[in-house]
Amino acid sequence: MNTLFNHRSIRKYKSTPIDAALLEKILSAGTRASNTGNMQVYSIIVTTDALIRKQLWEIHFKQNMVLEAPVHLTFCADINRFNQWCQQRNTVPGYDNFLWFYNASIDALLASQNVCIEAENNGLGICYLGTTTYNADKIIDILNLPAGVVPVTSVVLGYPNENPDLTDRLPLNAIVHYEKYQPYTTSSIEEMYADKEALPITKKLIEENKTDNLAQIFTEKRYKKSDNVIFSNSFLQTLKNQGFMNQ
Amino acid sequence: MNTLFNHRSIRKYKSTPIDAALLEKILSAGTRASNTGNMQVYSIIVTTDALIRKQLWEIHFKQNMVLEAPVHLTFCADINRFNQWCQQRNTVPGYDNFLWFYNASIDALLASQNVCIEAENNGLGICYLGTTTYNADKIIDILNLPAGVVPVTSVVLGYPNENPDLTDRLPLNAIVHYEKYQPYTTSSIEEMYADKEALPITKKLIEENKTDNLAQIFTEKRYKKSDNVIFSNSFLQTLKNQGFMNQ
Repeated sequence: MNTLFNHRSIRKYKSTPIDAALLEKILSAGTRASNTGNMQVYSIIVTTDALIRKQLWEIHFKQNMVLEAPVHLTFCADINRFNQWCQQRNTVPGYDNFLWFYNASIDALLASQNVCIEAENNGLGICYLGTTTYNADKIIDILNLPAGVVPVTSVVLGYPNENPDLTDRLPLNAIVHYEKYQPYTTSSIEEMYADKEALPITKKLIEENKTDNLAQIFTEKRYKKSDNVIFSNSFLQTLKNQGFMNQ
Repeated sequence: MNTLFNHRSIRKYKSTPIDAALLEKILSAGTRASNTGNMQVYSIIVTTDALIRKQLWEIHFKQNMVLEAPVHLTFCADINRFNQWCQQRNTVPGYDNFLWFYNASIDALLASQNVCIEAENNGLGICYLGTTTYNADKIIDILNLPAGVVPVTSVVLGYPNENPDLTDRLPLNAIVHYEKYQPYTTSSIEEMYADKEALPITKKLIEENKTDNLAQIFTEKRYKKSDNVIFSNSFLQTLKNQGFMNQ
């Protein structure tokens, strides 16, 4: 299976819609993923309506691909359905806490990855939207998410209109530790980041961003501390508002 | 590709070790998953040493499969490597907050699902351990995880010594909502859970657990509110201890 090794995030899409039966098959693959106690505490919102997708596009920092892709998937941690079942079975659910937000997040994220892989197996392209947690409160409003439901990631889906190169990755020994965690040293860090720093795209980015090096593009431009603090607090407030912080 | 649709969690393993080159290929598939800004803020700890695996088995509620499976993988949210690189590049990382714990969790979980799928593609069996977050502090001690690193899920890996049936799932329309979230009604919940409740295994579980119904097995036996509150608080404390709650 080459799908896993050939994954590229796709940022340009054809307007061709996705056949309903194919979409169902892809979503079904999502539900076959491992999940917590087979409770399936997650939901997938499938949005194709152009007006709602435009609202989501605004929330997701107006990235073009969000407008272009015909299908927008929002993966949610969801304890609401399970709670309602418990109530109808005369028992009191105890899942209004952080542990269960996290369990439900795991369920949603493993399902999302299965959906993406099955989509790619069928010739579709995908792109994850890391911006979901930044404005989770606004996504909750747009998609009418009730208490017990929090959006944790989003994926846009459609037929690719580009064929990008494979993205670089750190060498495997930067990610994998044998037996226990092996501390990094000054020289091992130098070695692990050397190839990435030598890439032509890196040099181009440094020039465009007028920084001294690639690390500064992350800390000073893309993911600044002041923004991270704002988004951390608003996401924690959203967890509270949706009923996941009663511990 | 039938791998996704044929996934079973495997709880009995042969002692046959996994070839090192095969394991590397499987782990490489993990690193091809989408991740936050291509920062790859996660690590994978590969434990094969019998003594360390026994320590992990004790933490993971002494489930037999954890002793049996020759490979134990711990997937960690990891901002430590990135931080160290930033420091060596004269810039101050701003990732000691909840948003980045969550971003790093997404990276770790998408990678874990790729690893599991590639393992299954190669005839191996896997089982996720939902107990990782319950005693994250003890796993941190065993695996020497430094500040900026939190274990978020674990997977045991090996050649299957059982061939279990496919596990039931809720019907797709219980999980998928079109356009926006569609509220559940009393009757839709009844319908969605009817097949699960009618399974022979459900009837057997109710008899064994001496409850009135399946929902009560979850709320009163498996995942009790009092335990959930304890584990929520200890996991939040671990996030704080590891430096992810400075917002």
